[in-house]
Amino acid sequence: MALIVKKFGGSSVATPEKIKNVAKRILSEKAPDDRIVMVVSAMGDTTDDLIALAEQVADTPYQYAREMDMLMTTGEQVSIALLTMAFRSMGQPAISLTGAMAGMKTDSAHTKGRIIGIVPARVHQELDKGNIVVIAGFQGTDPAGNPVTLGRGGSDTSAVAIAGAIGADTCEIYTDVDGIYSADPRIARGARRMREITYNEMLEMARLGAGVMQPRSVEMGQLYKIPIHVRSTFTTEPGTIIREEYTVEEKSFIIRGVTHDEHVSKVAVLGVANVPGVAHEIFSALADANIDVDMIVQSLRSAESNITDMIFTVASIDAPEAKQVVERIADKINASSVLIDNDVAKVSIVGAGMLGSPGIAARMFGALSRTKINIEIISTSEISISCLIKGGSVKEAVNVIHDEFFPDAH
Amino acid sequence: MALIVKKFGGSSVATPEKIKNVAKRILSEKAPDDRIVMVVSAMGDTTDDLIALAEQVADTPYQYAREMDMLMTTGEQVSIALLTMAFRSMGQPAISLTGAMAGMKTDSAHTKGRIIGIVPARVHQELDKGNIVVIAGFQGTDPAGNPVTLGRGGSDTSAVAIAGAIGADTCEIYTDVDGIYSADPRIARGARRMREITYNEMLEMARLGAGVMQPRSVEMGQLYKIPIHVRSTFTTEPGTIIREEYTVEEKSFIIRGVTHDEHVSKVAVLGVANVPGVAHEIFSALADANIDVDMIVQSLRSAESNITDMIFTVASIDAPEAKQVVERIADKINASSVLIDNDVAKVSIVGAGMLGSPGIAARMFGALSRTKINIEIISTSEISISCLIKGGSVKEAVNVIHDEFFPDAH
Repeated sequence: MALIVKKFGGSSVATPEKIKNVAKRILSEKAPDDRIVMVVSAMGDTTDDLIALAEQVADTPYQYAREMDMLMTTGEQVSIALLTMAFRSMGQPAISLTGAMAGMKTDSAHTKGRIIGIVPARVHQELDKGNIVVIAGFQGTDPAGNPVTLGRGGSDTSAVAIAGAIGADTCEIYTDVDGIYSADPRIARGARRMREITYNEMLEMARLGAGVMQPRSVEMGQLYKIPIHVRSTFTTEPGTIIREEYTVEEKSFIIRGVTHDEHVSKVAVLGVANVPGVAHEIFSALADANIDVDMIVQSLRSAESNITDMIFTVASIDAPEAKQVVERIADKINASSVLIDNDVAKVSIVGAGMLGSPGIAARMFGALSRTKINIEIISTSEISISCLIKGGSVKEAVNVIHDEFFPDAH
Repeated sequence: MALIVKKFGGSSVATPEKIKNVAKRILSEKAPDDRIVMVVSAMGDTTDDLIALAEQVADTPYQYAREMDMLMTTGEQVSIALLTMAFRSMGQPAISLTGAMAGMKTDSAHTKGRIIGIVPARVHQELDKGNIVVIAGFQGTDPAGNPVTLGRGGSDTSAVAIAGAIGADTCEIYTDVDGIYSADPRIARGARRMREITYNEMLEMARLGAGVMQPRSVEMGQLYKIPIHVRSTFTTEPGTIIREEYTVEEKSFIIRGVTHDEHVSKVAVLGVANVPGVAHEIFSALADANIDVDMIVQSLRSAESNITDMIFTVASIDAPEAKQVVERIADKINASSVLIDNDVAKVSIVGAGMLGSPGIAARMFGALSRTKINIEIISTSEISISCLIKGGSVKEAVNVIHDEFFPDAH
């Protein structure tokens, strides 16, 4: 007997036909004594349709965040009712529960709520009756009973949190890719699907640009020690399991993945006086403006000069504001100019194995240098190494680095 | 200061534009210290759209009544969120509450629930904060917290029940007609709008075919002594107030209205032996089949014969089953044949004033006889008289009776 939470996203339940297919698949794979909780998102474009309605009654509907949540939570409520009917019409006892009924407690941060607790009494009660329990993802209620949505990636977070609260054996996330790859398979020729990956590596990959899982849900899995199984909605491939430690006798890769992020911009603050407090001046001004700074390099122009250039990266979306913030303090720090370069990208390697393996960085830099790709900034963490390169070189960079570390992949 | 509940049906909130118009109207009519509760239905065709979705995942979705309720309750939730945004974007503090949040407690009869109580603490709390409170009609939750819809006319019932629970001064029902008429204005030339009508008369008119208000909501108004003000969504005409007693110096009409019902069928059980127990045999068989019998007449064929014909009316929808039920017991009661006539209609007059005014029945029959309309069956209650006539004569009958009692109407 297994207790399993299975999460299906909006594209998996986009039409009545797809909803029936989900129900059929679940029933074909279910062992007689499996206890199953489904967490589902709103059907396909429902969310966009609801936003469009809101925009027709109010110019800036997100200003009324509570009412947006009242509106948006109907999307999942439709999906859970329909999926439950599909199960029941196939003879399977099932019941739908809204986030509120499933005991999902959130704070009051409407449209970007955080889970503060789960009281899953009703979920256990319905499982005990033999039901498949179909829960609305992405939603909960605040202490006053108002509906609250969880923000981006919220349904994954709901699913993992519910799995933790009911002590599930595993949480399966069904999605439009069939697992976690060693690099983005759309650009890396030899990208291979991982059978397993640790929470820490997955979090680092997500931070460095891998888009499959939102970090919040991985953190939640790590917190509750729930293995997260990422699988395809459309195939029965085994997918990837995200967990604390490796369990299978898989060939031991030193690195787990090559990621890339093209949504970064380089900010160069030129001609800064090299005196104490300048870095603090710049980065506290950026922090006050809520701008995250990622890679940083400071270079003295020459041994004799006392003028430095301060170069750092920010998310592209923050670049214009970062420029304004720095320009406002340019006089104070004696900067001659502030330049933005959007034609950059970050490629990274991630793997807990690099801790005990010297020479990994050298192999990465070597691969880039053999293909004449210039490295502008380097940064490292315990389990990752990142290089900032020209934007146009991303595809080639990912491939040569991947080939270096996964030579037998293709 | 007034505390007013205002109910808007699905056609009044069918589009974002109409929702904005409702908000504008409410704000233009609101006195600064009025406290307002809105009760709204799902937008226009939403309910049909949701049913169509359900039919695509399950052949007989109403079999899964709880899940239909889970699905259908999203319709009003969308309306309340949008109407609240409309108010707020016009600068009016407002908040939406689902039936559950407004404390609407129902039994567990999914898709046809009955209100068993209201706990309006949150409604008071939000009114005290200066909000217009926008509540989802047609829905509540059962003791286990499951969503339940109230069945036909449910939003009117929600509105009147909430008005009763919060002690509102009045409950305004906005609809596509501008009040209660002395006869159906689509067929009676001289039909006039009533300024007032009593609960009892309104209930009798509804029972006898007047379609504007569902009896349940009128009964609820009577129970809680809440005046129900029926008004047009599209005009500012004064409408009709349904209340316990007349308050205005209106010309005192002996009858309040002429109603008609074309959805009736006549069942004739011919050649029945006139012995004790035959009527009981027939009508208990019909009762066992849940068929309501309305008008009944039994006639002896001649003074010598001991053979009678038993004639009665049922709702047209029940006629085929009524025929089968009676045919099953035909041998036992010695009936020679059972005939159904669908080409009949019932015209009725309603008015508490007839209690103290002799000759009302004679005037009704006289009006019909002058126009050569034959009366097949007559039935009376304390405040109504009904005649069964040929279906083709309905329009003429309603007009001649209406002219008899409202001679100055046109």
